[in-house]
Amino acid sequence: MSTSTNSREKFSVRKLLFGEPLRTEALPHQTVNKRIGLAIFASDALSSTAYATEEILIILALAGTGAATLGLSIPIAIAISILLIIVTISYRQTIYAYPNGGGAYIVARDNLGELPAQIAGASLLTDYILTVAVSVSSGVAQIVSGFPELLPYRVELAILVIAIITIVNLRGVRESGRIFAVPTYFFVGTMLLTLAVGFVRYLLGDLPTVVNVEAVHSGTQTVTLFLILRAFSSGSAALTGIEAISNGITAFKEPRSHNAAVTLVWMSTLLVIMFLGITFMAHQIGALPSETETVISQIGRTVYGEGSPLYLAVLAGTALILLMAANTSYADFPRLAALAASDGFLPRQLTYRGGRLVFSWGIVGLAAFASLLVIVMNARTTALIPLYAIGVFLSFTISQTGMVVHMRRIGKLKPGESVQGHDTVLHYDAHWRTKMFISGFGAVCTGIVALVFAVTKFTSGAWVVVVLIPSLVYIFSRIHDHYRDVARALSLQGVPVDIEKRPIQTIILVDDVHAETVRLVNFAKSLDHPWHAVHVATNPDKIEIVREKWRKRIGEGELVILPSPYRLLAEPIRHYIEQIQEQQPGGFVHVIMGHLAMDTYWEQILHQNTAVIFNLALSRMDNVVVTSVPYQIHRDELRRAHHVKNGAHNGTVAQR
Amino acid sequence: MSTSTNSREKFSVRKLLFGEPLRTEALPHQTVNKRIGLAIFASDALSSTAYATEEILIILALAGTGAATLGLSIPIAIAISILLIIVTISYRQTIYAYPNGGGAYIVARDNLGELPAQIAGASLLTDYILTVAVSVSSGVAQIVSGFPELLPYRVELAILVIAIITIVNLRGVRESGRIFAVPTYFFVGTMLLTLAVGFVRYLLGDLPTVVNVEAVHSGTQTVTLFLILRAFSSGSAALTGIEAISNGITAFKEPRSHNAAVTLVWMSTLLVIMFLGITFMAHQIGALPSETETVISQIGRTVYGEGSPLYLAVLAGTALILLMAANTSYADFPRLAALAASDGFLPRQLTYRGGRLVFSWGIVGLAAFASLLVIVMNARTTALIPLYAIGVFLSFTISQTGMVVHMRRIGKLKPGESVQGHDTVLHYDAHWRTKMFISGFGAVCTGIVALVFAVTKFTSGAWVVVVLIPSLVYIFSRIHDHYRDVARALSLQGVPVDIEKRPIQTIILVDDVHAETVRLVNFAKSLDHPWHAVHVATNPDKIEIVREKWRKRIGEGELVILPSPYRLLAEPIRHYIEQIQEQQPGGFVHVIMGHLAMDTYWEQILHQNTAVIFNLALSRMDNVVVTSVPYQIHRDELRRAHHVKNGAHNGTVAQR
Repeated sequence: MSTSTNSREKFSVRKLLFGEPLRTEALPHQTVNKRIGLAIFASDALSSTAYATEEILIILALAGTGAATLGLSIPIAIAISILLIIVTISYRQTIYAYPNGGGAYIVARDNLGELPAQIAGASLLTDYILTVAVSVSSGVAQIVSGFPELLPYRVELAILVIAIITIVNLRGVRESGRIFAVPTYFFVGTMLLTLAVGFVRYLLGDLPTVVNVEAVHSGTQTVTLFLILRAFSSGSAALTGIEAISNGITAFKEPRSHNAAVTLVWMSTLLVIMFLGITFMAHQIGALPSETETVISQIGRTVYGEGSPLYLAVLAGTALILLMAANTSYADFPRLAALAASDGFLPRQLTYRGGRLVFSWGIVGLAAFASLLVIVMNARTTALIPLYAIGVFLSFTISQTGMVVHMRRIGKLKPGESVQGHDTVLHYDAHWRTKMFISGFGAVCTGIVALVFAVTKFTSGAWVVVVLIPSLVYIFSRIHDHYRDVARALSLQGVPVDIEKRPIQTIILVDDVHAETVRLVNFAKSLDHPWHAVHVATNPDKIEIVREKWRKRIGEGELVILPSPYRLLAEPIRHYIEQIQEQQPGGFVHVIMGHLAMDTYWEQILHQNTAVIFNLALSRMDNVVVTSVPYQIHRDELRRAHHVKNGAHNGTVAQR
Repeated sequence: MSTSTNSREKFSVRKLLFGEPLRTEALPHQTVNKRIGLAIFASDALSSTAYATEEILIILALAGTGAATLGLSIPIAIAISILLIIVTISYRQTIYAYPNGGGAYIVARDNLGELPAQIAGASLLTDYILTVAVSVSSGVAQIVSGFPELLPYRVELAILVIAIITIVNLRGVRESGRIFAVPTYFFVGTMLLTLAVGFVRYLLGDLPTVVNVEAVHSGTQTVTLFLILRAFSSGSAALTGIEAISNGITAFKEPRSHNAAVTLVWMSTLLVIMFLGITFMAHQIGALPSETETVISQIGRTVYGEGSPLYLAVLAGTALILLMAANTSYADFPRLAALAASDGFLPRQLTYRGGRLVFSWGIVGLAAFASLLVIVMNARTTALIPLYAIGVFLSFTISQTGMVVHMRRIGKLKPGESVQGHDTVLHYDAHWRTKMFISGFGAVCTGIVALVFAVTKFTSGAWVVVVLIPSLVYIFSRIHDHYRDVARALSLQGVPVDIEKRPIQTIILVDDVHAETVRLVNFAKSLDHPWHAVHVATNPDKIEIVREKWRKRIGEGELVILPSPYRLLAEPIRHYIEQIQEQQPGGFVHVIMGHLAMDTYWEQILHQNTAVIFNLALSRMDNVVVTSVPYQIHRDELRRAHHVKNGAHNGTVAQR
C-alpha cells in the first residue's frame, strides 16, 4: 500500500470541510493587472464607506438630530477626505521605495528598528481582528436592514459568517483574483449608480426625505470641539484598508510599483467620491443614525423606493463587499503573524503552512478573537468602532516616520548611487527632501489623528486598545527574549564539542504481546544494544497472561513486570528508569514504545497514549530518549478482522 | 538536578489551580462508619427533596392552582414514597449480594450480559450529567430565591458553580469524609427543624399562608389520569441517588454489607420523612409553583417569617446539599466511565488516573456536558426534569432484573454451597424465592415508572433521552468492536513469528547546529548504525550558515539539504524517506529529532513541533521509526543566558 493512498484515505471529516491537501506546486504564482488588483485590494478600504458616514452621524446625534447638527457631517467628511489624500500621496512613495512589499512592519523594521516594528505589528494584528469583527457586524447590519425579522439573530448570523469565511480560508483560496472582482465592482457599480440617481433626483428637486426610521435617542449635549473631533475620528474609519496595496505590491504585474501606485490612486479616488457622495446624500435625505437600519439602507430605499430590486441590490452589494473586506484580513493576519514569528516575536508554529498551503494557526486564531469580539459587543458596529482604526493610524504614523528615515538615508547617497539595504535597494533621488517632507507631514497628520482617537474615545472603548497594544508588544518581546535565551543556552560558541560514543540501554514498553510487540522487538534487536521489555501492570489479572504470551510468542529477552496498583502508567516507568540511570551513569536510556496508526481520525483518538505518557513523564528526564514505532492498521484489515467469527480472541482487547 | 525537582518546577499555572501532584500512596484507603457514610452517599438522594415537590406542583398547575388540584400532590407523594420503600428493600438485597460494589452496570454485566450492562451504563452516565445540571440549577434557584437581584445571572452563576466543583475535583478531594458530613447534616437539621416548627404552628392553627409569590401561569387543562401520571413521574425525581450506597459499599467499615444496608435504610427513612413533610407543608401554606422562588424558600419564609436568619439558613442548607449532590456525580461519572473503558466500551484513556489520582478526562467531560445542558436549558430546573430520572429508573429496572437472575442462580445451589462468580461469591440462601420475588416486583414497578416517564414526558424533553441512550449504546458497541477488531488484527494466533535483524538507516533532523544537535549526533553515533543528517531548508538564507556550522562544530557525518521553497516541513522529509526506502527495502528508517523540554508550560508551547510533524507525516509510513531526543533547558539556564550581554549570538534564534 503506497503512502499517498494512505494519506488520501485518512481524515475524512477534515477533507470534507477543508478539501484535499494541496500540492506545494499549487501555491499561486500568478500576478494581477491593475483592474483585478483594484478588486482584490480595494475591498477593505471601499467597504469602510458602508459605516463611516453612519458613525459620524451617531456621534453628532449626541447633540441632537437636527439638520444643522447632523449637517456638520459634510465638513467633517471633507476633512477626512483631505487626510485620505495626504496618506495616499505618502503611501505612493512607500510603494516605489519598497517594491518587494512595504507594509508598516517591514518599513519600520528596516528604518526604525525592532521596537517600532513591534508596535506596528501589534497595531496591525489588533486591527485585522477588528476589521473582521467590524466588517462582519456591519455586513450583517445591512442584511438585517432589509430583513428586520432577522434582527434578534444578529450575533448568530455574524458568527455563522465568520465560520464560513474561516472554513473557506482553511481550505485555501485557490481561485484566481477574477472571482474577487465580481463583488467589488458590483458594489462600486450599485453604489455609484445610487449616488448618481440620487443626485439627479436632488437636482430635479425630486429627492424625498427618508421615512419610518427608528432613530437612536437624540442627545442633548452641546456641539463642542471635542464632539466634532470625536465624530471626525469615528469617520476616519474610512481610511482603514488604504494600506492594503502597499502590503501586496508583489502581486502586481511588472512594472509592479507603477501598477500598484496607479491602483492606489484609483482606489483613493473612488473612496473619496463614494464617501463624500454617501455623506452628502445622507444629509439630503435626512438620514438618521439608527440601531436597526443602516444609513446605506436608508439612502437605498429613499432613492429607489421601498422594495425596489435596486434597493436590495445596494444592500447585497454592501454586505458582499464587507464580507470581502473581512476575508482580506484572513490573508493579511496570518501573513503578518508568520513574518513576526520568523523574526522570533511570535511562536514559530505560525511560520509553517498547513496541508492546504495556508498558515492555519493564524487563521484559527483570527477567527477565535474576532468571534469573541462579536459576541462581547453583540455584533454592534458602533460598539466596535471606538476600538477600531487606532491601530491603523498608529501603523500609518510609524510607517511614514520610517519613510522619513528612509529618505534621509537616500539623501546621504551620491547622485546615481544605489545601495542594497536589508529589505529594499536604496536609489539616489534628487527629490528626497520633498519626499521626506511629504512622509513627515503624513506622519504628523496621522499621528495627531491617532492621538485624537485615543483621547476622544478613551472611555467609550479605546482604552482597551491603549492597554492592549503595549501588552502585545511586551508579550512579543518576552517571546523574542525567550528564543534568544534558548539560542544562547544552546550555543556552542567557545564550548569544546566532543562527541564520544556512550552506552545505550534499550527498554521496550509492552502492554500486551501481539503483532505490534513483534515489530518493537524486531527494531530493538536490530539496534543491537542490550535490551529488555517492561510491562506496567495496571491490571494485575493480566500479568500472567502477558508473561505466558511473551514466553510462547517472543521467547527471547527479559520481561520485567512493574507493579502499578493505582493504574498509573508514567510513574512506575519513571522510577524504573531512574534506577537504571543510577546503575549506568552517563549512558542513554532508550525507551521504545508502539504507536498504533489508524486510517480515520475517530479510530486514532481511541489509541492516543504514547504522546501523553511521553509528555507527562519522560521528556523531562535527562538522557532518556523515546522512540515511537508506528504500526499501521488499515481499514481493510479491521474489516477483515471484524468478520472473523471464531471466538478465540474474545475478551482479549488491545490496550493501547 | 534531580528529576523530582524538575517536575516540581514545571506547570505553574496548573499547580495553582489543581495543586501539587499527589503521590500514589495518597489514594485514600480509609473506610467510613455509618454516620459519615450517610453524609457522603445521601446528599444526592436527600437533595432531590429540594425540587421533587415543586415539580409535582408545576405539572398540577397546568390544571389550575386551586387548593383541590394542588392538593393532589399529597396522594402522589405517598405513592412515590411507597415506590421508594419498594426500591429500598430491593436494593438492600443487592448490597448483601454484591459486597464488592453492586452498581447497576456490574449487576447487569454479571447476570444479564453485555447489552443490558451497556444500557445501564449509558443510562447512568446520562443521568450523572443531568444530576450535575439539575442540582446546580436548583441550587442556584434557591440562592436566587433569597436574593432576587441575582435572577438575571442564573446561567452565569450555575456555570461558575460547575467550574468551581470541576477545579476542586481535578485537584482531587483529599479531605476525609468528615468534611462532607457538615453540609448534609446541616441540611437535614435545618429542614427537619423547619418541618417541625411548621407542624407545631399548624397544630396551633398559627401557620400562615404564603404571600407575594409570582406564581406560574395557572393552566386550564382538566385533571386527567395522564396529568396525574405526569406529575407522579416528575416527583419520582425524588428517588434519584438512592442507588449511591450500592455503588460505594467498599467504602464502609466491616461488616460492610451490614453497615451499608443500615445506612440505606436510614437514608430512605429520612428521604420519605422529608419528602412527605415538604409536600404536606407546601400544601398547608398554599405554596405555588413559581419561576422566581422555590417551594423550599416559600416554606422557609412562611414558617420563620421573611428575613429571619433561619429562613436564610434553610436556603443555604438546601443550596449546599444540592452542590454536594452535584459533587457526587464527579466521583461516580469518571469511575463508571473508567469501568466501561476497561471493558473496552469507552476510550482507554478514561481508565488512567491523572497526576492527582483522579480520572481527569471523565471529570472534564462531565463538566463540559453539564455546562452545555445548563446553557441550553437556561439553568431552569423544570426544563431539565423531563430529561432526568428516566436513566435512573431504567438502571433500577435493569439492576433488579439482574438480581432476579442472580437469585435464580442461587436457587440452583445446594444448601450450604458457595460458588465464586465473576464479580461476587454466590452463597446458598433458603429464602431465594422470596428475594427473587422482591427484586422482580421492584423491577416491574420501576420499569412501569420508566415507561410512564417516557410516555408522559416524551414531547416535553424525554424524547432526547429516548434517542440518546440507544445512540450511546450504539457508540459503545462500535468502540468495543473496534478494540476487538484491532486485537484480532494484531493477534499472533497461528501466525509464525520470526524476528530477524534488519538493517537500520538513521537520519537526524537538523534545524540548526547547537548543543541540542550535539546530543542528537551523540545518540546517533552511539547507536552505531549508518547515519547522516538532514536539514529542511525552509529558509534558504540559512542553508550556508547551517552547512558551515555543521562543518566547524560537528565535523563528521554527511549533511543533506532538502529544499522547501514553501516552508513545508513534513512533505520534503516524507519524500526523502520514500527514496531511502526504495533503495533499502525491508529495512527500518530511523528518524531522530530533537525536542526542547522547558520548565514552564508557556515556554513549552513555543517549542512544540516535533509531535506535529510526526503525527502529520511519519506515523503513517510503514517501517519508519521516530525517536525524540529531549534536551532540557531549565529556567536557571535561561536566566543566565538572559544576562549574557555580549552580542555574539544576536540574531541567531533557535528555530525549534
